[in-house]
Amino acid sequence: MILDNRLPFKYLFNTVKYELIIVFIVGIITHSGAMELTVLLPNMPLTIPAFLGTSISVLLSFKMNQSYDRWWEGRKTWGAITNDSRSLVIQLQTFLGSGQSHIINRIAYLQIAWCFSLGNSLRGTPNSIDGLSRLVNESDLNKILKHRNHALAITQLITTDIKELRLNNAIDIHTNIHLQETITRLTDSMGSAERISNTVFPSTYRLILHFLIYIFVISLSISLKGTNNIFVLPLLLLISAGFFSIEKIAYHLQDPFKNRPSDVPVTDIATTIEINIRQLLREEITQDHKRPHNFFVM
Amino acid sequence: MILDNRLPFKYLFNTVKYELIIVFIVGIITHSGAMELTVLLPNMPLTIPAFLGTSISVLLSFKMNQSYDRWWEGRKTWGAITNDSRSLVIQLQTFLGSGQSHIINRIAYLQIAWCFSLGNSLRGTPNSIDGLSRLVNESDLNKILKHRNHALAITQLITTDIKELRLNNAIDIHTNIHLQETITRLTDSMGSAERISNTVFPSTYRLILHFLIYIFVISLSISLKGTNNIFVLPLLLLISAGFFSIEKIAYHLQDPFKNRPSDVPVTDIATTIEINIRQLLREEITQDHKRPHNFFVM
Amino acid sequence: MILDNRLPFKYLFNTVKYELIIVFIVGIITHSGAMELTVLLPNMPLTIPAFLGTSISVLLSFKMNQSYDRWWEGRKTWGAITNDSRSLVIQLQTFLGSGQSHIINRIAYLQIAWCFSLGNSLRGTPNSIDGLSRLVNESDLNKILKHRNHALAITQLITTDIKELRLNNAIDIHTNIHLQETITRLTDSMGSAERISNTVFPSTYRLILHFLIYIFVISLSISLKGTNNIFVLPLLLLISAGFFSIEKIAYHLQDPFKNRPSDVPVTDIATTIEINIRQLLREEITQDHKRPHNFFVM
Amino acid sequence: MILDNRLPFKYLFNTVKYELIIVFIVGIITHSGAMELTVLLPNMPLTIPAFLGTSISVLLSFKMNQSYDRWWEGRKTWGAITNDSRSLVIQLQTFLGSGQSHIINRIAYLQIAWCFSLGNSLRGTPNSIDGLSRLVNESDLNKILKHRNHALAITQLITTDIKELRLNNAIDIHTNIHLQETITRLTDSMGSAERISNTVFPSTYRLILHFLIYIFVISLSISLKGTNNIFVLPLLLLISAGFFSIEKIAYHLQDPFKNRPSDVPVTDIATTIEINIRQLLREEITQDHKRPHNFFVM
Amino acid sequence: MILDNRLPFKYLFNTVKYELIIVFIVGIITHSGAMELTVLLPNMPLTIPAFLGTSISVLLSFKMNQSYDRWWEGRKTWGAITNDSRSLVIQLQTFLGSGQSHIINRIAYLQIAWCFSLGNSLRGTPNSIDGLSRLVNESDLNKILKHRNHALAITQLITTDIKELRLNNAIDIHTNIHLQETITRLTDSMGSAERISNTVFPSTYRLILHFLIYIFVISLSISLKGTNNIFVLPLLLLISAGFFSIEKIAYHLQDPFKNRPSDVPVTDIATTIEINIRQLLREEITQDHKRPHNFFVM
Repeated sequence: MILDNRLPFKYLFNTVKYELIIVFIVGIITHSGAMELTVLLPNMPLTIPAFLGTSISVLLSFKMNQSYDRWWEGRKTWGAITNDSRSLVIQLQTFLGSGQSHIINRIAYLQIAWCFSLGNSLRGTPNSIDGLSRLVNESDLNKILKHRNHALAITQLITTDIKELRLNNAIDIHTNIHLQETITRLTDSMGSAERISNTVFPSTYRLILHFLIYIFVISLSISLKGTNNIFVLPLLLLISAGFFSIEKIAYHLQDPFKNRPSDVPVTDIATTIEINIRQLLREEITQDHKRPHNFFVM
Repeated sequence: MILDNRLPFKYLFNTVKYELIIVFIVGIITHSGAMELTVLLPNMPLTIPAFLGTSISVLLSFKMNQSYDRWWEGRKTWGAITNDSRSLVIQLQTFLGSGQSHIINRIAYLQIAWCFSLGNSLRGTPNSIDGLSRLVNESDLNKILKHRNHALAITQLITTDIKELRLNNAIDIHTNIHLQETITRLTDSMGSAERISNTVFPSTYRLILHFLIYIFVISLSISLKGTNNIFVLPLLLLISAGFFSIEKIAYHLQDPFKNRPSDVPVTDIATTIEINIRQLLREEITQDHKRPHNFFVM
Repeated sequence: MILDNRLPFKYLFNTVKYELIIVFIVGIITHSGAMELTVLLPNMPLTIPAFLGTSISVLLSFKMNQSYDRWWEGRKTWGAITNDSRSLVIQLQTFLGSGQSHIINRIAYLQIAWCFSLGNSLRGTPNSIDGLSRLVNESDLNKILKHRNHALAITQLITTDIKELRLNNAIDIHTNIHLQETITRLTDSMGSAERISNTVFPSTYRLILHFLIYIFVISLSISLKGTNNIFVLPLLLLISAGFFSIEKIAYHLQDPFKNRPSDVPVTDIATTIEINIRQLLREEITQDHKRPHNFFVM
Repeated sequence: MILDNRLPFKYLFNTVKYELIIVFIVGIITHSGAMELTVLLPNMPLTIPAFLGTSISVLLSFKMNQSYDRWWEGRKTWGAITNDSRSLVIQLQTFLGSGQSHIINRIAYLQIAWCFSLGNSLRGTPNSIDGLSRLVNESDLNKILKHRNHALAITQLITTDIKELRLNNAIDIHTNIHLQETITRLTDSMGSAERISNTVFPSTYRLILHFLIYIFVISLSISLKGTNNIFVLPLLLLISAGFFSIEKIAYHLQDPFKNRPSDVPVTDIATTIEINIRQLLREEITQDHKRPHNFFVM
Repeated sequence: MILDNRLPFKYLFNTVKYELIIVFIVGIITHSGAMELTVLLPNMPLTIPAFLGTSISVLLSFKMNQSYDRWWEGRKTWGAITNDSRSLVIQLQTFLGSGQSHIINRIAYLQIAWCFSLGNSLRGTPNSIDGLSRLVNESDLNKILKHRNHALAITQLITTDIKELRLNNAIDIHTNIHLQETITRLTDSMGSAERISNTVFPSTYRLILHFLIYIFVISLSISLKGTNNIFVLPLLLLISAGFFSIEKIAYHLQDPFKNRPSDVPVTDIATTIEINIRQLLREEITQDHKRPHNFFVM
């Protein structure tokens, strides 16, 4: 989650430090070389790095745009997961008689587990249902572990429970289909999050952007060959720091489910879902469900 | 709500005054320093601040774009809330017999309370159902207060009422599902508004933009070192005022449910919903439901 | 409606004439002042107005984008109204027996009235159901006039009719829900049109754009202080005319339901809906239903 | 349809030839005039046409964007028509008994006729059902001709057939509603295609773009007054050819259902739908259904 | 699939090598010619190639935007196919009794075959069901081969099976419609993938872009006529390599289902679907279903 108050100057610097070191070295070499060869080298008009700089900002702006859209799509997907998880429990409470609170609880806990499991697998945790034994019983855990896609296995458990309800005539066919539609929407959200997580942005575009930024640095340092290094190097570093930082922000936004500060806070959202569902089930919220940060991440 | 007629010159100036003071100070220091060191300092060609200025406008344009989209999405969400609140009452009137006007009124009032409660919680009011005792009875208020998410608690009350109707055979299963679908859409809108309100725009991007604007100011004031301060400072202030103002507009649009003049008028919309629903219930609209501004905010 | 053939040179000139007069005066004052003070004033490099001009075009391009999107959304909303109005009549004809053509006609006429009433209220007509007595009977008109939102009142009349059909067992619950869904879509379109009509685009953005255009004009006229007024003034006027015109086009597109030439032709679309529905009812189209312009506005 | 292999150099040249002739004449007059008046005329700095050129490319880029989106929306609409036409036949085959292949065929042929009729009316063919007697019988053709909107009349015929099926109890109410939903989607697609075809892009924007390109040409030719015509004119023509061509491409994309090479191939798509539907009906595809170009336009 | 780790420098170079050779030749000829004619030729101010370069980057940015959107739409379509394929099997398992696992398996295998067949036909494989005999029996294969559109034929087989289930009263009409809706979504996704694959991006736009890049190269080489070829040619090649590469990336993204490294990995996704469905059927995943690359392509 991006917090507005801690301005991550140091964080930002860290993300682009390797690029800045390269700019520093390239700048020194090119600029010194240019000053040595000042008689041989032609004048590189400043117009060339200037138009390159403008072009880079246009191309960066496109990349930022796409990355932001992908991040926002990831955020929306988890918003939909929150909504549909809450709706699933409300629907069960609406359509099931009061004698069936046991099965409502069971499905509600499975749904909470589904959220944590999906979040973990998006963050690359090897065993995505680790630590969920407070929500899922032993026998179900074993069934889930046989699957590669744990969240999909939990979905299958939920649908099996609903099928049971139908066979016992606890719900009619219309309610069955209505619940199934909510589950289908959750499956769609799962697929959407997996798609965002697993589709890499065309890496060649990134390569060309870096390439153009270095051409910009080189041509700018040649253009300024008449000027002292003390003034040229900071200028090179500052401007290219701006460009590389924006590229880096875009790069991180593209992959919004990892553990970085700018990411979609999947674990926090799963915890919010847990609190909301437990309150719908009229449970007390104990301290250990409280999330460290602000309440309304959702 | 943004009113077109009061051109908020003073308001705008206030939003960027700290940035302009910094620009003023930075401008004086850099420019005076540059004039002092005029022999030592190289010529900073104007091409460099010029291309920086163009780049900044490109990057600002992206930010404005995303912020506007977020604001418009917030506006759409409240449009959907208006539509679905009205539809819920029309549906109840369509599917319930004339003997059930009591329960229609009850659910309609709860739905109005839901709108105010959601609006208040988005604006950060500590107790989001404060002042809603004209709409919700004592016992319900107590149930709602046990929840952290008051609007979600009201939704649960409404679905409990609808379940009651189903158990009494006042509605059949198809009507039940049809009403439930409207409630699911309202839950989705609630989630969508919460998501917009609680997801911070990547703050690092903002940092880089400010950083680039200051580099622009510094390099422009060095470029113009041959010119008198009386002409340079106003130019620096005017151009950077333009940039900072646009950045500020974008920044405010990102968070569209607060109390600022450019915000989505959630309380006004909730009042419009109240008037519409009361007219659908064939109640008289008394003076105190009238909104101060124009009628059709919707 | 925008007609392609009448190139509205005069129209365009009228929309920006006040801005051009201001530019003219500002241009003369600044430029003459600059020539008087030519010794005192520093050289304003042309690079500054040039980069300002580029920045303005970037920011204008964003504004044009958002305004166009809003206009197109308004157009889509009325497209959806056309589709759903036609669908409502086709559905009534499909699900009602041949003995019920009276009620089909009644609802069809109410739906036509709904379209005209919504169109009128979007255009700011004080009494939006004025002149609709050919479609709605006296008693219904009186009921509608009690509401503030006339279109919503017509919707309530239609749903009451459908409820009547259900109570008489002319339709079953499934058909009832199916018709209700079409009506909900129409209510959504109404809300969407009201939202576009009543949400003002952030006026501060417009202010900043005008502000930047005037800074551009002033700095350009100072830059060209060595040149004769006869050449400078036309240049200032032509370029700023281009900028102001685009800003004006964008400004008009934002509010797409008024009576301007570039607007969504709500009355024409309502007339098309009337003709289509009357043909679905197998009525003869008399001359006075014919629209003056081309047939297929839709 | 846009074919990738025939690079339409000649076609492109033809689309902008009038603009280029004007540029040629304007260029000669301005440039010669500028050389004559070389003593009187001030220096027009190249910075002015340069920033104008950049601005034009930004504004063109916006126009290209909107035009492309409209073209792609038109393409999607016809994609939806293909899908829903195929789905309608599959649904009829699923829900009707084997004894009813006659009525399936009848509706399937009407649906094919609907596609051709809509395509023809979008392309401005006066009688949109001309040549469709192989698909629709005499008596139906006469009914259709009484309507102004032929496709809407065919939709009414199809719904009448489905109503017949319902009255004969060949389908139940649920199947009836399910089929009706597919027909509603087809009506929506028809409305969407009509909307794109009949809504003109704001023509004033186009006017301003042309106006700015001519200002660019004039200021560029004045700027280069020291240079020989032999070099200046080709430059003016080449650059303005680029601008005008892009404007022309955008202009043609806005209106995507006409007979131009860049259009959505509505007749080809209708033929694909015919082949697909006939194969679903297990008919032999004879040579005259084969489309001249590649098979998979869809 | 685009893998992040193999930076395809060589791949990129290969994609633009012909353009670079042309740039090299054009550069040498123009530049040498310019140096020969140095007395006759006027000075081409650098401002002209600079603004052309900026314009090209703006227009490239638009193209990149559209191409990326198309690629992402293709990706989403296959995401929807994954979701709906999984949902279809889960729905069958929910609504069919335990005695019908044979028919569940049969439909599940047909659905897997549908995915491979669609993927193959998008990649241009002549016989799209080649190698699918492990999933489809002989008699079905023969039926499929009679169709031109194999995937559509498989859809027809699935709906025939579901119709059979309905006729045997294994499912009721509501389940039938619910399953049919999932199949309709799959048909829509098929249509969407075919549309993206078969609609060529306006080729004239590409032509103009190449044309403008060559004008840029020529005017830049004339502008630098005073400079030695050893410095001018690398500059021309590097900058135009950047432009052409971005154009090429955009060009490849437009057509996202071919065999290029940046494509949507349709076969990999089909294999993931196969594994997921087989696990839902509780089958063992043998080695030959394992995909070579990372597991979660989805």
